[in-house]
Amino acid sequence: MHKLLHDLIIKNDKKIVLLVLDGVGGLPQKPGGKTELETARTPNLDKLAKESECGMHIPIDFGITPGSAPGHLALFGYEPLHYPIGRGVVAAMGIGFPMKPRDVAARMNFATQDENGNITDRRAGRIPTEKCAELCEILKKISIPGVEVSVKPVKDYRAVVVFRGEGLSDKVTDTDTQKTGVKPLDPEATAPEGEKTARLAKEFVKQTFQLLKDLSPTNACLLRGFAELPHIPSMQDLYKLNPLALAVYPDYRGVSRLVGMNVIEGIKDLDEEMKHLTENWNNYDFFFVHHKYTDSKGEDGNFEAKVKEIEKVDAVIHKIRALNPDVLIVTGDHSTPAVMKSHSGHPVPFLMNAKNIRSDDTDSFGERACARGIWGNIRTHVLIQLALSYADKIKKFGA
Amino acid sequence: MHKLLHDLIIKNDKKIVLLVLDGVGGLPQKPGGKTELETARTPNLDKLAKESECGMHIPIDFGITPGSAPGHLALFGYEPLHYPIGRGVVAAMGIGFPMKPRDVAARMNFATQDENGNITDRRAGRIPTEKCAELCEILKKISIPGVEVSVKPVKDYRAVVVFRGEGLSDKVTDTDTQKTGVKPLDPEATAPEGEKTARLAKEFVKQTFQLLKDLSPTNACLLRGFAELPHIPSMQDLYKLNPLALAVYPDYRGVSRLVGMNVIEGIKDLDEEMKHLTENWNNYDFFFVHHKYTDSKGEDGNFEAKVKEIEKVDAVIHKIRALNPDVLIVTGDHSTPAVMKSHSGHPVPFLMNAKNIRSDDTDSFGERACARGIWGNIRTHVLIQLALSYADKIKKFGA
Repeated sequence: MHKLLHDLIIKNDKKIVLLVLDGVGGLPQKPGGKTELETARTPNLDKLAKESECGMHIPIDFGITPGSAPGHLALFGYEPLHYPIGRGVVAAMGIGFPMKPRDVAARMNFATQDENGNITDRRAGRIPTEKCAELCEILKKISIPGVEVSVKPVKDYRAVVVFRGEGLSDKVTDTDTQKTGVKPLDPEATAPEGEKTARLAKEFVKQTFQLLKDLSPTNACLLRGFAELPHIPSMQDLYKLNPLALAVYPDYRGVSRLVGMNVIEGIKDLDEEMKHLTENWNNYDFFFVHHKYTDSKGEDGNFEAKVKEIEKVDAVIHKIRALNPDVLIVTGDHSTPAVMKSHSGHPVPFLMNAKNIRSDDTDSFGERACARGIWGNIRTHVLIQLALSYADKIKKFGA
Repeated sequence: MHKLLHDLIIKNDKKIVLLVLDGVGGLPQKPGGKTELETARTPNLDKLAKESECGMHIPIDFGITPGSAPGHLALFGYEPLHYPIGRGVVAAMGIGFPMKPRDVAARMNFATQDENGNITDRRAGRIPTEKCAELCEILKKISIPGVEVSVKPVKDYRAVVVFRGEGLSDKVTDTDTQKTGVKPLDPEATAPEGEKTARLAKEFVKQTFQLLKDLSPTNACLLRGFAELPHIPSMQDLYKLNPLALAVYPDYRGVSRLVGMNVIEGIKDLDEEMKHLTENWNNYDFFFVHHKYTDSKGEDGNFEAKVKEIEKVDAVIHKIRALNPDVLIVTGDHSTPAVMKSHSGHPVPFLMNAKNIRSDDTDSFGERACARGIWGNIRTHVLIQLALSYADKIKKFGA
């Protein structure tokens, strides 16, 4: 499909806005009740839905709960199962580390070993994040010729190490056996191109053990999930778009960079996102605008607070519409029902507004209303095709 | 998808019930009329539908009429096109023959040959089943060293032969040319691993002709569709489920065994199924409950009798709900419209009841009501993913 799209895409100056309310999909608090989105007072989204084509989308597959990265990849038009993101990359993206192509990242645990070198605790007594940060500071002393090493705290005993240099590869095995009572393994290449990285990782581990040796219980480290950035074709290459990401949280700027988006750093809130959207309106033709807190409140299990976050987004819809985008999509990357306090596999409501559409009289922006919309249930990664089409960016296929 | 599911599945003790009304999907008797399911008085299913997510499912593909085996495979979560079941296995399963892995089954016709050995009638004058059974008795005399041979009557001139022994394979050609006026072919191996079986089959045919030679018009046999059990991963392996099948008819116990289900033998009717369901509630976490007669009455072309069978199932719904299953699916394996007196390719209505769902106000359990349900038309084999998801048995994909 990417090949087909690439061949059919026309560049023009029409503008697409993808507004993502993270985790917007929800569930009723009681059987027969309303979801968060159905409960929220959203006059502007309701009016927009009535003037739009509506439906539900499924990011990964039926019943599969998406993580944030695959959920967003799908919204950007990438079948997430074709672009798995390795654990090291997930960890690096999770803390907003700006990985570059050919960088190799690995998840690191601070751990405890006994006098024989056997691991006794894979989590070093679950040290707090502050302690982890101190240890990462100590590891700044590590010096390996020809490679730049970054060790960053993630959470509790979890850290991430990123190697940057020439000729690196993620074809390297874990040192973490995921067992206690045994020594960590040496990192080994699983293909010739991994040999240099395996050697460097071995040296990294050696120096780390040296620096930690008197710091029991955190006198060891375990590495797993060596990963490069996935080789994802950029939105520029695929769709001839010039995309901009506006996101408060680093993870979402990270996943945006993966697909080649330009990113504005230091945005604090939705109002700033709207300001940057307006100011950059003439410089780009695709705008990803991300609102995080619908998901956060869902994860907290706070139904009412999630409702309020949806209402906050409703209150800025007029600012986006004032710019007169050629295509406006409003949706989420997955569902985060407050009653579940977690992401879920439920389909996600969307609306797509453009000039040449068949608006479907969906009279409110909600899960069950959108499920009766013109699109029914579709896969998330095809939304971009609809947007490109409605922005007259796809040529006819065949004669 | 199976690989992905396998990686993401969590075992827990939540319970899923799949209640199948065989061939439940139907058609109106007259244009504009109601289907069997829409006609049936089903207060309990209607109430359940209102509290459920509803939709239609498509077992094989649009417009493709499913046989019973692929229809059920799809309900159990197996894309039926990936797991073709050979003709010999279908015949063996159809009579409830307990095939084991590496057994090889073939469909057999009793036929008529002339003095030159040319086949004159591929169906031996369509002899009745009783005659077929007598002939199968005679063939018990067949003795081939190193292999156990079973010949069983199916219906009319149709029988099935099953070879059991070491080193067998279904890589063997048909003896049946599907023409008259020519001799049957010798069975031949299509791959080295089929050589032993081809040799045994040739010996079987030789002894059969010997035993039948004076019994004109049934003085010949024709073999086709040599088949082993398909290599289907079990529901235990794939989904970490511990499944139980409750079915009156042997075919359905057969297809349940194919996917690793435990099976209770000797069940006589729906009430006994309910009794066994209740008694075994604590021992399993997936229950397949099968009601055959909706299909039988559809095949008979008896609209009213099919309606009554649906109402019989409605009358036991309270027994299932009393057990408080975490997920309850009610559906069919395919449509068997009485007006067609046969299976058909029409989508099949379903309802899915669980705690964390978006019940869709479907106010009666019927084809057109379900088609307006939250799921629209989906593929049958994804239903299990939804059930597993709603039973909290699938981890998040990606970070």
